[in-house]
Amino acid sequence: MATQRILDFLATRRPSGPCLVVDLDVVRDNFRAFEKAMPESKVYYAVKANPAPEILRLLAGMGSSFDTASVAEIEMAMDAGAPAERISFGNTIKKERDIARAFELGIRLFAVDSVEEVEKVARAAPGSRVFCRVLTDGEGAEWPLSRKFGCVPDMAVDVLRVAKALGLDSYGVSFHVGSQQTDLTAWDRALADAKKVFAKLAEEGIMLGMVNMGGGFPTRYLRDVPAAQAYGQAIFEALSKHFGNSIPETIIEPGRGMVGNAGVIKSEVVLISKKADNDNVRWVFLDIGKFGGLAETMDEAIRYPIVTARDADEKSPCVLAGPTCDSADVMYEKTPYPLPLSLTIGDEVLIEGTGAYTTTYSSVAFNGFEPLRSYVI
Amino acid sequence: MATQRILDFLATRRPSGPCLVVDLDVVRDNFRAFEKAMPESKVYYAVKANPAPEILRLLAGMGSSFDTASVAEIEMAMDAGAPAERISFGNTIKKERDIARAFELGIRLFAVDSVEEVEKVARAAPGSRVFCRVLTDGEGAEWPLSRKFGCVPDMAVDVLRVAKALGLDSYGVSFHVGSQQTDLTAWDRALADAKKVFAKLAEEGIMLGMVNMGGGFPTRYLRDVPAAQAYGQAIFEALSKHFGNSIPETIIEPGRGMVGNAGVIKSEVVLISKKADNDNVRWVFLDIGKFGGLAETMDEAIRYPIVTARDADEKSPCVLAGPTCDSADVMYEKTPYPLPLSLTIGDEVLIEGTGAYTTTYSSVAFNGFEPLRSYVI
Repeated sequence: MATQRILDFLATRRPSGPCLVVDLDVVRDNFRAFEKAMPESKVYYAVKANPAPEILRLLAGMGSSFDTASVAEIEMAMDAGAPAERISFGNTIKKERDIARAFELGIRLFAVDSVEEVEKVARAAPGSRVFCRVLTDGEGAEWPLSRKFGCVPDMAVDVLRVAKALGLDSYGVSFHVGSQQTDLTAWDRALADAKKVFAKLAEEGIMLGMVNMGGGFPTRYLRDVPAAQAYGQAIFEALSKHFGNSIPETIIEPGRGMVGNAGVIKSEVVLISKKADNDNVRWVFLDIGKFGGLAETMDEAIRYPIVTARDADEKSPCVLAGPTCDSADVMYEKTPYPLPLSLTIGDEVLIEGTGAYTTTYSSVAFNGFEPLRSYVI
Repeated sequence: MATQRILDFLATRRPSGPCLVVDLDVVRDNFRAFEKAMPESKVYYAVKANPAPEILRLLAGMGSSFDTASVAEIEMAMDAGAPAERISFGNTIKKERDIARAFELGIRLFAVDSVEEVEKVARAAPGSRVFCRVLTDGEGAEWPLSRKFGCVPDMAVDVLRVAKALGLDSYGVSFHVGSQQTDLTAWDRALADAKKVFAKLAEEGIMLGMVNMGGGFPTRYLRDVPAAQAYGQAIFEALSKHFGNSIPETIIEPGRGMVGNAGVIKSEVVLISKKADNDNVRWVFLDIGKFGGLAETMDEAIRYPIVTARDADEKSPCVLAGPTCDSADVMYEKTPYPLPLSLTIGDEVLIEGTGAYTTTYSSVAFNGFEPLRSYVI
């Protein structure tokens, strides 16, 4: 997944220290693939996945809309050229003063999952569109969702009823099947729940018009994942099954699926050692770890492909760890990572599929190490 | 643990957004308590716990030495007035060019736990003192150590033998009993291992002179912890038991124990909601979470005391979560946190014991939220 452009950049620029290199050509291809696979859906890029200005400008120029988590992300999307009507404030946890600021900036689409949040939106962004997030089980996802976002479908009916009563535009329902979701039936189960909310509110004369199907579209790490086309097909069939002839407006919010495979982290082997002479597992320490951008290795959730110049040589299992003095800064230990026996201190390694959820997760200065640098080419 | 000075600062300055306030008077008291409890030991403050310049300047002025994890931390300690001879490069995972840079800056004390690291130090910092870290079991610690740092005692003998052969000063042994260690016998077990390494090398004519007893000294979160005095007593007894009349020079590296209880994070309740009408657990969302500085709530490891203005009211269990769109950004869920039933959106909460391992853990800009601000008073 390291494109020739990324390899050339690393070969000519030879940046010192760990860094992420993102190839905009891949982002462009991904956006087109989503548009092609789901031509009826509007794409809202999840800015949190990677808010690099170059990425936002590219996508804004291609007509993408944007899913944002904070006022700062709204401002970044607008700076990149996105008009306010193409921006959703998709965080269900917002300070009332941030809702007010977003409203001032022209934002009219807000996520909610509780009556309490609806009340804030009604006060600070009167008349706006709201969609209510419904809990899904997240089964089949590699980066599981807790119950943090959303409410049960019955409560979503209450939330949207209150929104209407408070003068808001009760616009739709959202769900998120879990990040890096590879089970195509997950969307079917969630759409069944969404349809229930539509039907119950229709009985009361409240007609919803939109389903926000969130993200969850995976990027390829070590295993092959279904392509955008397969997702599009499965989702279209589920929509038809549950909504028949009156398929609502749909939104998708790819983040990882848009930029994950567009980025590669270049890192350096700092140390290779053992804990005892008779250990058969080597410890390999890189100059990047859990606090330098690889936060998603938490609980070994995401297993990135790692490429070295010695991959033709025989491999043996290694514990892979980061450079900080924090003992939690270990990426893969329960399931050791096979790396070449010939791997040597000072070798460069490429960590692929790292375009999403790396740079901004990086800590400010833990252990004095600077945050992950990023080059968008 | 919010001192009157901290409360006064918050009342007069009313900083907006989440922030950490550190009271230097508490740091001063902690340093004196360590000196008093362990008068024979040199205190090396673990800079990574909180590298705020004001804290480093205070401790440098009081005569503290410094345990550093990177060249940047070495430079911070020197900028604060610490001479190079009072600084240890305590990370066992160092790039050779960083060792060379530290040597240029005058650093002559390096941690190692492998022959491979010794070879780097011998090349880049010839003649320097090295101490070898020995693995301990970490039992009894709240923030457990993996096997990431150290090697088994038998291998430490090999490592220090090679160091001597390569022209280094094989100076001693270090261990770390695990952060927030409340079992006083942990030091006894580790010192027994250290003594074994001393004895084996003495048979070969290599006389070690120092034991670095690391950190692990706890700060008070929700439960009472033994005071510095009790630690000093237990450690002195263990030293006498294992080393008899020839007690070596000793070093301690408090980080959390030096600054943990000196800091308080001020946060705001952003949302209180439920996931279903019949849920009996409320969800409380703060404007700070796992990616904004409370990384040590990972796996609910550290349970901070939380103070509100309504603590006299009846309490009920809450799931406590942060403000980001990441479902992993939940602090306490397996063991919900009791908070007042009267708690209201917009309320201020104080998270105590947060002087260590918060600011620098904070992510650069995840979800667009700025890193944790810090005021040292």
